[in-house]
Amino acid sequence: MPQIETEIPASHMPPSTKTAILVIGGAEDKVHGREILHTFWLRAGGSDAAIAIIPSASREPLLIGDRYQQIFEEMGAKFTKVLDIRDREQGEDPYFQEYIEQCTGVFLTGGDQLRLCGLLADTPLMERIRGRVQQGEITLAGTSAGAAIMGHHMIAGGSSGECPNRALVDMAIGLGFIPEIIVDQHFHNRNRMARLLSAISNHPERLGIGIDEDTCALFEKDGWLRVIGRGTVTIVDAREMSYTNQTEVGATEPISLHNLRVHILSHGDNYHLHLQKPVPKQ
Amino acid sequence: MPQIETEIPASHMPPSTKTAILVIGGAEDKVHGREILHTFWLRAGGSDAAIAIIPSASREPLLIGDRYQQIFEEMGAKFTKVLDIRDREQGEDPYFQEYIEQCTGVFLTGGDQLRLCGLLADTPLMERIRGRVQQGEITLAGTSAGAAIMGHHMIAGGSSGECPNRALVDMAIGLGFIPEIIVDQHFHNRNRMARLLSAISNHPERLGIGIDEDTCALFEKDGWLRVIGRGTVTIVDAREMSYTNQTEVGATEPISLHNLRVHILSHGDNYHLHLQKPVPKQ
Repeated sequence: MPQIETEIPASHMPPSTKTAILVIGGAEDKVHGREILHTFWLRAGGSDAAIAIIPSASREPLLIGDRYQQIFEEMGAKFTKVLDIRDREQGEDPYFQEYIEQCTGVFLTGGDQLRLCGLLADTPLMERIRGRVQQGEITLAGTSAGAAIMGHHMIAGGSSGECPNRALVDMAIGLGFIPEIIVDQHFHNRNRMARLLSAISNHPERLGIGIDEDTCALFEKDGWLRVIGRGTVTIVDAREMSYTNQTEVGATEPISLHNLRVHILSHGDNYHLHLQKPVPKQ
Repeated sequence: MPQIETEIPASHMPPSTKTAILVIGGAEDKVHGREILHTFWLRAGGSDAAIAIIPSASREPLLIGDRYQQIFEEMGAKFTKVLDIRDREQGEDPYFQEYIEQCTGVFLTGGDQLRLCGLLADTPLMERIRGRVQQGEITLAGTSAGAAIMGHHMIAGGSSGECPNRALVDMAIGLGFIPEIIVDQHFHNRNRMARLLSAISNHPERLGIGIDEDTCALFEKDGWLRVIGRGTVTIVDAREMSYTNQTEVGATEPISLHNLRVHILSHGDNYHLHLQKPVPKQ
């Protein structure tokens, strides 16, 4: 097992063009091909990667942090460290900040997205991660709860088995790494189309992104996302919506949404966030 | 209780412009406002209505037939009759055919859509119902299994909790009253978006119509449908689809569908089948 240090030589940083943001729908393969986690490891620098695992969404942070640490070490990451943040004061810990300053990949585990935001939002640590991600210096990945927090608006909870209505989804503010999207995860697995539609009805200027389990929307810095993994990524684009009654109806009444554009993308398909354009696998 | 007869005076026929086809998502209100069933009764002629109830989809045809008969009699239908067809030979029964010849409304109950088609497809009785519906002489309603059979292609079964894939849906041939649609019922209630998408991927020239429980897509003869009831009608329009891998992938592999147009319609909303145009409630 490689020794964990906070000092990482600058030469180990991957070229900034290789960084990306991986938004994972949960339950990614941790045993067999591990395609998604392997892609994260590669894009974080491969054998030169210095990875920070933040398990703070989970109520079993030691267990889950250790699991991912073992995986990335087995793949050959140079440095791995679990940042076991359990209170907001740790977001100011200089030791953690120093590691973030020099790492090449940050992985946010699953758990509860409200817990993750509550512990990390607006801390110096999170602001530094955000800055380095925006500069293209860090590859960021989040799975399940760690995916939910990617947008400015975040789905905090909700249910299924109903037509779109305001009470079907609980919204909160996310960590905003990709502010223009609203993410839903475990998407078709947990039948979440109606809850994503309910969320989008209130924020039609945002792009709804539903990600299935063991599936990843990999966001490149140039605005393209690419699908990897076993399921689909569903894009709900309401930017040309011609009508909704969302503001007029009661919380449990059905919501109308006219003229949505929907794309179901599978492995290898691409979509451009701003061109609003899907491109099939070549 | 009015006497059931097969002879109905011609003066009791409603004006043909009033007839419609009501496609009901199942579990329609039978106790309180009964909005959908009342609309069927009205469009079948109201107090002049002569209604045929076909409970053949059900394995308890007497029970379910009697239930609807009581409801339509309470509303004041002039004649009601349960056509308890349990084998295909009854589809040639002159007594049943005579009733159909003179009735103003036909109601198909829920149950198993394969059973319904197996008993009725291509029988003289069904051909006569089809002819009179096409001529605008009969208002037709079908709920649940009775709704599923409306298109040429029919969803016979399937499941949920997966991304769109060919194995998620079982297709068969329906009774084809509105050939250009593929209906799914109990739609958001049973999380059937992925199964409807799976069906549409193989028949993108057809229009997917997902109907929630206690909700009705009422098709007028001029191509407009209007939503009544408590839930939503979801339209999946793949006629401008730019790409699918449907024919290339294995039966359980994820299906890509690029550039779908989706509309969620609620009470009072309208949609034109051929203009592809939703119009909000006025």
